[in-house]
Amino acid sequence: MNVTIQNALLPTKTGYQTCDVQVTGDKITAIAAALEPQGKAIDATHKLLLPGFFNAHTHSSEMWQRGAIAPLPLELWLSELYSSPDLTPEKIYLSALGTAVETLLSGGTSVIDHLVMPPGQELEAIAAVVRGYREVGIRAFVAPLVQDLAAKEGLPSGNHKTDYQPYSQSTAEILAWMETAIKQFHRPEEGISLMVGPTGLQLCTDELFQGCITLSDRYSLCRHTHLLETKAQQRLAYEKYGHSAVEHLSRLGFLGPQTSLAHCVWLDQADIPVLAASGASVVHNPLSNLRLGSGIAPILQYRQAGINVTFGCDGTASNDSQDILEAIKIGTLLHNTTEPDYQHWITPTQAIAMATQGGARAVNLSSQLGILTVGQQADFVLYDLTSLALLPPTDPVGLLVMGRPVNSVDSIWVRGRQLVEAGQVLSTDISQLRQRFLTTNQWQRRPLNAATAQLAHHYRAVMGLAN
Amino acid sequence: MNVTIQNALLPTKTGYQTCDVQVTGDKITAIAAALEPQGKAIDATHKLLLPGFFNAHTHSSEMWQRGAIAPLPLELWLSELYSSPDLTPEKIYLSALGTAVETLLSGGTSVIDHLVMPPGQELEAIAAVVRGYREVGIRAFVAPLVQDLAAKEGLPSGNHKTDYQPYSQSTAEILAWMETAIKQFHRPEEGISLMVGPTGLQLCTDELFQGCITLSDRYSLCRHTHLLETKAQQRLAYEKYGHSAVEHLSRLGFLGPQTSLAHCVWLDQADIPVLAASGASVVHNPLSNLRLGSGIAPILQYRQAGINVTFGCDGTASNDSQDILEAIKIGTLLHNTTEPDYQHWITPTQAIAMATQGGARAVNLSSQLGILTVGQQADFVLYDLTSLALLPPTDPVGLLVMGRPVNSVDSIWVRGRQLVEAGQVLSTDISQLRQRFLTTNQWQRRPLNAATAQLAHHYRAVMGLAN
Repeated sequence: MNVTIQNALLPTKTGYQTCDVQVTGDKITAIAAALEPQGKAIDATHKLLLPGFFNAHTHSSEMWQRGAIAPLPLELWLSELYSSPDLTPEKIYLSALGTAVETLLSGGTSVIDHLVMPPGQELEAIAAVVRGYREVGIRAFVAPLVQDLAAKEGLPSGNHKTDYQPYSQSTAEILAWMETAIKQFHRPEEGISLMVGPTGLQLCTDELFQGCITLSDRYSLCRHTHLLETKAQQRLAYEKYGHSAVEHLSRLGFLGPQTSLAHCVWLDQADIPVLAASGASVVHNPLSNLRLGSGIAPILQYRQAGINVTFGCDGTASNDSQDILEAIKIGTLLHNTTEPDYQHWITPTQAIAMATQGGARAVNLSSQLGILTVGQQADFVLYDLTSLALLPPTDPVGLLVMGRPVNSVDSIWVRGRQLVEAGQVLSTDISQLRQRFLTTNQWQRRPLNAATAQLAHHYRAVMGLAN
Repeated sequence: MNVTIQNALLPTKTGYQTCDVQVTGDKITAIAAALEPQGKAIDATHKLLLPGFFNAHTHSSEMWQRGAIAPLPLELWLSELYSSPDLTPEKIYLSALGTAVETLLSGGTSVIDHLVMPPGQELEAIAAVVRGYREVGIRAFVAPLVQDLAAKEGLPSGNHKTDYQPYSQSTAEILAWMETAIKQFHRPEEGISLMVGPTGLQLCTDELFQGCITLSDRYSLCRHTHLLETKAQQRLAYEKYGHSAVEHLSRLGFLGPQTSLAHCVWLDQADIPVLAASGASVVHNPLSNLRLGSGIAPILQYRQAGINVTFGCDGTASNDSQDILEAIKIGTLLHNTTEPDYQHWITPTQAIAMATQGGARAVNLSSQLGILTVGQQADFVLYDLTSLALLPPTDPVGLLVMGRPVNSVDSIWVRGRQLVEAGQVLSTDISQLRQRFLTTNQWQRRPLNAATAQLAHHYRAVMGLAN
């Protein structure tokens, strides 16, 4: 449908201007003062118009364990996560809806879902998540999370070794269902793209990475993986390869402008120019990195080296919300404490560019997404500048990023389709979603499971913590 | 009015239980299963009941500059703040309403307002802020912010000196209007308490501190001040006194169980046992400390030393929201990156205790506030566990702290008076407040002012940044 947004406030290089924006089909076709309306006219007086943010790293199906796992480092937290109640395609569909809605209502129009699935039900799980994202209408990049080593291999052992216990599926089996899924679900022109998503070097063989690269090349897919989230992973890489994880990904040929790397907390200094030269993007997940005690990723250094950085919420078991504006706020302010010279701090305008253009670059779609300009996809958000958290009127972009107002998203369009109006989601039934969530689980506090307690002993020894 | 809250979910040591809570007048008079209702019955099925949080450090009148000041360190940020549009009592009233409402809707029932006032209009300003807090009904502790040195003395000069330029009001004048204000507005039994609030050693003489101590003793008032927010303040204290700021406050006799200290980012190791022995409380303002690049306060160390720590938002020009739950979330998770041993990390249950009991202790009112028990003041919050951000049902306290859900506050009582119902503020007209904010300011991006640019040159030299 065609839409004319009238009298919206748009940021300029030095301040703000009032403009109309014409949407024809799924694209922006004109931006100017006082356009002749074509199609539905939307009064955007007292509203700020921005491109939609990317929630550029999450795991939607973790929503079933949000809030439930105690504060633990990644390796022990994973042990709790693995003890989760069984995921079903129905639960995966519901958590995709929840993830999409929370992302939208915090200003996000695109999501990269590094999808955790029940083993053996991968195609059903991908079908369920795609059904959820199509229903809500958010632009989705689904990277089925794969590994071909057993979970216990994710921790350093203290010694170099060559015999790694395989995962319950073989590398060939994994690559086979991945190719089936790509053929079945990869529909970028309909807003659903598949990516290849090996979970990370710590749990994947070189063969799995190479297979993913082949699929990525064959079907023109982007690539997504975790990289050096924890100090333990940094140690493991040296133990396994005798060189850094970045060096290893580079030798494998995994890095490129189509590659996005979640976390990047523990890169060596020498890795930074390697990453910059590759054109790969970093997805910064500040809240998850704090919650799991992973550390503070050196984002200012990456930006100075010319690396594209964007933001993600990470899964709800490690954050535990899908408020992308919160990730932008904290991912912006956090670095002011690591850098004494305030001239290098990220400004609110830069933060918005990272969350929009930076997200588009991370999925290699800069020509179609991330800025408000004629010819781009109509993925944008109107913020209500009369909502209490955005008052009194000052600098709306400054207040959006540094204040993280709640209840300020007024309307959202993705691919020219209106998904949110007056703060209400149009495309899915929120009351029904709440009811279905409510009847599935019980309120309880869960004690640590026995496997975690056992693993903790090994973890503490390897990481030099008193046992 | 008497109220019976029925079937609320309450946290226990190991999980949750369902209870009724009887309120008679302004107090909790019974907590048990299946109470006979006395007064209005409230169905709290699927709702979590917690004591209200303290927003234990803010400056309400900064709301007029929220979002407007660029990312700068405190000393330069203050120069921007001082160039603010003029504050009037009317504006102070409106920003008190805004601060109270945002605090309430994020689960806060008490606020410590270190109030910035227009010089010469202090009594009118205090009257205005008290009017706002009485109207909304939040419990308020108002600490008029005073200084008797000129603003420029807040920066280290590089040398010891003894001639400090005085402020536009004399110490005696300040203490005189303070005493008038105390007599006029200090009404703890009505939910409005005054505190003495020297801004900090960096802008106050020993005489002003001593005068504040005298007033505090004479009228049984709590004491509130900024302490070592920045590295520059740490340097300044040594320059001025030849010893640490904590040592100086201790010698002055300012520290005690009635004292709360905002920030405490740059304490020396030797200061920690001094602070612990004094019984004073620390107010942790994580978001402001990040935004201004002040650093990460060593909160885990303080807690291990037995120091009471609670949370604050700080003023909206340095955060830029009054979402106390956000401050709790970030103030909890932030420290996981500073401490490798996860066994010392703050748990969600501990975080709630810090924000409730810790707040009560910071205003020396542990016997009346901060826990749900018979005899305490009825200051509490019901959270709607069927709101989307708290679903699916898992561990509500874990999800509240680590997720920071939006739109989850259902109902609030302060002093037994219901202020919020079904997420809507009952006590003040929000539409009217929005309208009044809207007509007062304009949207714009403000360039740095000339005074800040000039000060920056000195700041960079003193702090060792390249000029």
